[in-house]
Amino acid sequence: MANSFGEKLSAAFEAKGQLCVGIDPHSHLLTSWDLDDSPKGLREFSLRVVEAASGLVSAVKPQVSFFERFGATGYEVLSEATQFAHSEGLIVIADAKRGDIGSTMDAYLEAWFGDLSGLYADAVTTSPYLGLAETSEVFGKWQAFGKGFYSLVATSNQQGESVQLAQVNGRTLASDQFAQLSGLNANPAGMLGSRGAVLGATLDLERYGIKTEADLIPILAPGFGAQGAKLSDARAIYKGLSSQVSFSVSRSILDAGARDLSSAIVNANSELVQGLTK
Amino acid sequence: MANSFGEKLSAAFEAKGQLCVGIDPHSHLLTSWDLDDSPKGLREFSLRVVEAASGLVSAVKPQVSFFERFGATGYEVLSEATQFAHSEGLIVIADAKRGDIGSTMDAYLEAWFGDLSGLYADAVTTSPYLGLAETSEVFGKWQAFGKGFYSLVATSNQQGESVQLAQVNGRTLASDQFAQLSGLNANPAGMLGSRGAVLGATLDLERYGIKTEADLIPILAPGFGAQGAKLSDARAIYKGLSSQVSFSVSRSILDAGARDLSSAIVNANSELVQGLTK
Repeated sequence: MANSFGEKLSAAFEAKGQLCVGIDPHSHLLTSWDLDDSPKGLREFSLRVVEAASGLVSAVKPQVSFFERFGATGYEVLSEATQFAHSEGLIVIADAKRGDIGSTMDAYLEAWFGDLSGLYADAVTTSPYLGLAETSEVFGKWQAFGKGFYSLVATSNQQGESVQLAQVNGRTLASDQFAQLSGLNANPAGMLGSRGAVLGATLDLERYGIKTEADLIPILAPGFGAQGAKLSDARAIYKGLSSQVSFSVSRSILDAGARDLSSAIVNANSELVQGLTK
Repeated sequence: MANSFGEKLSAAFEAKGQLCVGIDPHSHLLTSWDLDDSPKGLREFSLRVVEAASGLVSAVKPQVSFFERFGATGYEVLSEATQFAHSEGLIVIADAKRGDIGSTMDAYLEAWFGDLSGLYADAVTTSPYLGLAETSEVFGKWQAFGKGFYSLVATSNQQGESVQLAQVNGRTLASDQFAQLSGLNANPAGMLGSRGAVLGATLDLERYGIKTEADLIPILAPGFGAQGAKLSDARAIYKGLSSQVSFSVSRSILDAGARDLSSAIVNANSELVQGLTK
């Protein structure tokens, strides 16, 4: 049996640290990199980011929308990029925010984890409006293949509050989702689980009622750099959860351009290490 | 300027009725249709459903997960199927349940509505965990191109309750979402709007606090047939909203197999007409 996603993640944190580099081929970034806003530019951009991330970080996070924008051809590029990342030993977290019911969700997980699609991902982000339990159930069978998911809990955009601060079971929806994930990941072996949470870095987690005490939920943290949070505050934000977090940076690194990408990653890594120890 | 999505929908309801045929190429359906569980089988299945639906109904609803399952090749097939549907005058509702923030959501809408992707859709389903306002804002510019979206409000699966019955502003989250959509669609001309709601047919809408009084929100209603609701109860379920609803049927029609598909659609149409008038 393959290692679980949580085990792979822990090993990768140990070896390469907790930074996760976003692959976000925005139209305006392609332009600022002197690339065409085309599948060709998309390919060049994505492969360069993987190349720069390789050896320096534990994970990459392709933002699927920027590939879907080019339809089938975009998916071909995504497939090439994720397979390249995999061959370089990077954990691939597909930021797809998929969510659906039963057999439909099953097909999404097959898309991101299975052999038919050529879209190699170790984990995928999911959106729980149709119920976390629905996703968690159909996910079950993928656990043995070392796969994981990160369900949205509290997101870094202000407009998410209208949903995530709703009240359920006497607490916020975000906190209820987080508690559900905590229960799903509990295991006597004390290893990180395979069912993760997305917790935006720009939020006051206390306001959402999220407990920042160590548990076994892998956490994906967007919101650093362009969105306002600082890697140097990593521990101040996530407190007891810090060692479970993949800290995701996209634009603040990608804005450096192709030539300075590696040094931007090295700098972000130093800032993160500082933020985790101080 | 093109007609708005709401205007196109109203005209299509008038001409072809309110049935919407799902294109759900489940693995087991491909098998039961004597097709390979492969992109070739997917293509054959999808084109046959469009062919059968053409002239008989107003809309088709491809379930994107079953195409994504085959990665880039699946998207090629989806693109061929949606373009074929479009050329046959069918409204195409891509059931993708996408949802993200700002420029990322923008890229998803460009994927489904723009020219780069080859994925022709008139409307796309969206998931509001990151906030309906976020989607509604970036959607704005597509309105003039006759595009629309259907945001999840209350879904037909039981596990959706854990989120959709959360309380916000003194009402259920589902009802709050519905009220927001109602406000977004209000217009003096009294035409259907472009910002729709997904309201599952198996639910007790009163329990969700959804007002079943006529307004201008286009509604997409899954849950008929295999999931338990009956087209003959169409009006009994949606009451004052009935005339705004696209009634979506998938498995109960697709189970008929390729040969009997047209007659299954004709039968479903009769049942729906009966359900809307009684």
